[in-house]
Amino acid sequence: MGPTDAQLTKLLSPISRDLERMRAVLVEQLTDASAAVRDMTDHVGRFRGKQLRGALVLLSGEVCGNRSDEHATVAAIVEMIHLATLVHDDVLDGADVRRRVASVNTRWDNQVAILLGDFMYARAFNLSTELSSRLVSRLLSDATRRLCAGEIEGSTRRYDFEMDQASYESIAAAKTATLYSAACELGARYPEGVPGHFESLREFGHEIGLAFQIVDDCLDLKGTQAVVGKSVGNDVEDGKVTLPVLHIYSSAPEDVRARIRDIYMTPGLENRAVALREACDLDPGIDYAMARAEELVESALTRLSAFPPGPAKDALGTLGSFVLDRRW
Amino acid sequence: MGPTDAQLTKLLSPISRDLERMRAVLVEQLTDASAAVRDMTDHVGRFRGKQLRGALVLLSGEVCGNRSDEHATVAAIVEMIHLATLVHDDVLDGADVRRRVASVNTRWDNQVAILLGDFMYARAFNLSTELSSRLVSRLLSDATRRLCAGEIEGSTRRYDFEMDQASYESIAAAKTATLYSAACELGARYPEGVPGHFESLREFGHEIGLAFQIVDDCLDLKGTQAVVGKSVGNDVEDGKVTLPVLHIYSSAPEDVRARIRDIYMTPGLENRAVALREACDLDPGIDYAMARAEELVESALTRLSAFPPGPAKDALGTLGSFVLDRRW
Repeated sequence: MGPTDAQLTKLLSPISRDLERMRAVLVEQLTDASAAVRDMTDHVGRFRGKQLRGALVLLSGEVCGNRSDEHATVAAIVEMIHLATLVHDDVLDGADVRRRVASVNTRWDNQVAILLGDFMYARAFNLSTELSSRLVSRLLSDATRRLCAGEIEGSTRRYDFEMDQASYESIAAAKTATLYSAACELGARYPEGVPGHFESLREFGHEIGLAFQIVDDCLDLKGTQAVVGKSVGNDVEDGKVTLPVLHIYSSAPEDVRARIRDIYMTPGLENRAVALREACDLDPGIDYAMARAEELVESALTRLSAFPPGPAKDALGTLGSFVLDRRW
Repeated sequence: MGPTDAQLTKLLSPISRDLERMRAVLVEQLTDASAAVRDMTDHVGRFRGKQLRGALVLLSGEVCGNRSDEHATVAAIVEMIHLATLVHDDVLDGADVRRRVASVNTRWDNQVAILLGDFMYARAFNLSTELSSRLVSRLLSDATRRLCAGEIEGSTRRYDFEMDQASYESIAAAKTATLYSAACELGARYPEGVPGHFESLREFGHEIGLAFQIVDDCLDLKGTQAVVGKSVGNDVEDGKVTLPVLHIYSSAPEDVRARIRDIYMTPGLENRAVALREACDLDPGIDYAMARAEELVESALTRLSAFPPGPAKDALGTLGSFVLDRRW
């Protein structure tokens, strides 16, 4: 089971003060002189989520004794970039629903969502230029570039059932691990942390980020909306061949393979994820993928061994473990 | 008549070497390790246009004797940000056409276009962090933020026939003048130009950028596709009430006003721009808007008076004048 809000608050108590400061910076930055923009950012503020990426910045700084007055701002910048990616994701997710309403409205909504995401990216980069060191601007613009390139690569590998595990992991890592890893590295490194420390924490972030994405892919395939808390089956619908499916497909007889391809690709088919579950036993694929996620988290936790014991190290370790049995 | 390609090449001869360097930087930056991304950026490279914003960076530096080895890179960054805005505009413009094909393809195309725009923004900001001064990162992230905020504001003022001219100009300026103005300022200022010079050139860029947008709005209303070289009538279709229409509307009797509103707002109406031309005489509105554009260009040209005569000054002046009678 994932943590409750109360558990999470307790876990993050070593950084509670900076988390508050981070939230204050976010509110201030998402306020714009334009009333129209304010309306939009108020709305975005509502899906702020657990703010894990911001927390990782602060915990990573804390665990290696690398604290600065600017850490809360760095955390806010990372969260803003994450919010911008969510806003752009929503343009796509909402497209089907909005397609049924009048064309002008559809267009207005998409237009504003794209512009709002762009606005938030620009705001985040602009804030980073006010920091005393250029490290944040450099690292996060590069991370954003890799994140987008990875997502584009992922788009072009849809319906690719012959993809090897390394390609899958590289795409999954670009999508999620990139920002986790940058968050951890920045916390440990900004403005001039000790070499050795930030490399370990960068790897820690990479591994739990990749594990997070693998678990997410398993939940999308196997979970139910009630348990996961968001709609599931999207990957099959979108043609994304994730690790559990790749594993099943690679060892399936040709008739099952053909059936899997049909379920993914036949136009107009409804409930593809349900059809997939009926067409084959997904459990070996899920087990395989979850074992890989466990391996990644285990490796991530060993990255923490060099750091002194204390509440920040405990919090990082616990967050890493939560990745494996999250329902959140 | 606007310039031919040969005329433009001659006009830009004072900066031809740096323009070549700018283009080389663009090609290099738009090349990515990912083959999928390379395919996309190759395509984007094809609508590179006249690269006026990049040329403004270089001419502004030249006219006030503020040259550096990094100016070509600064020009490339400005062009990349402009290309990113075009890619995101295309998501919206292409939406209607793509809506008639299979849903999976629609989604794939939009997704990739959004990600590609994001990729290009990130690439541009990342490149700016490699420059010796932080000025470009600061100015362009702020310009991008204002550009997006202005476009969002513009979206929410659609169908607003009571908008005053100042609001129209503020939205039109955010959309176009922001990047023109930043281009001119950066050319004159980077990395540490003489105060007085960069303020004048910033204003020059602002005024010709705003004039450009006003002329664009007139062409969209009054031009034909054959002459303008791109589809026209989009603003009426999109509910954008531009300066010529605002002027006509403000002095029209109530029955004409009602007819104008109907033409903009009746669902499913075809060829709204043609209907508008038939419903009222647009010429006084066009004349009024063009007079305003002329006033702006005239003011812009006086900004150049402080600079020494020479081919760079001539080129800036001629580009400013071209804005008024462009068909390009």
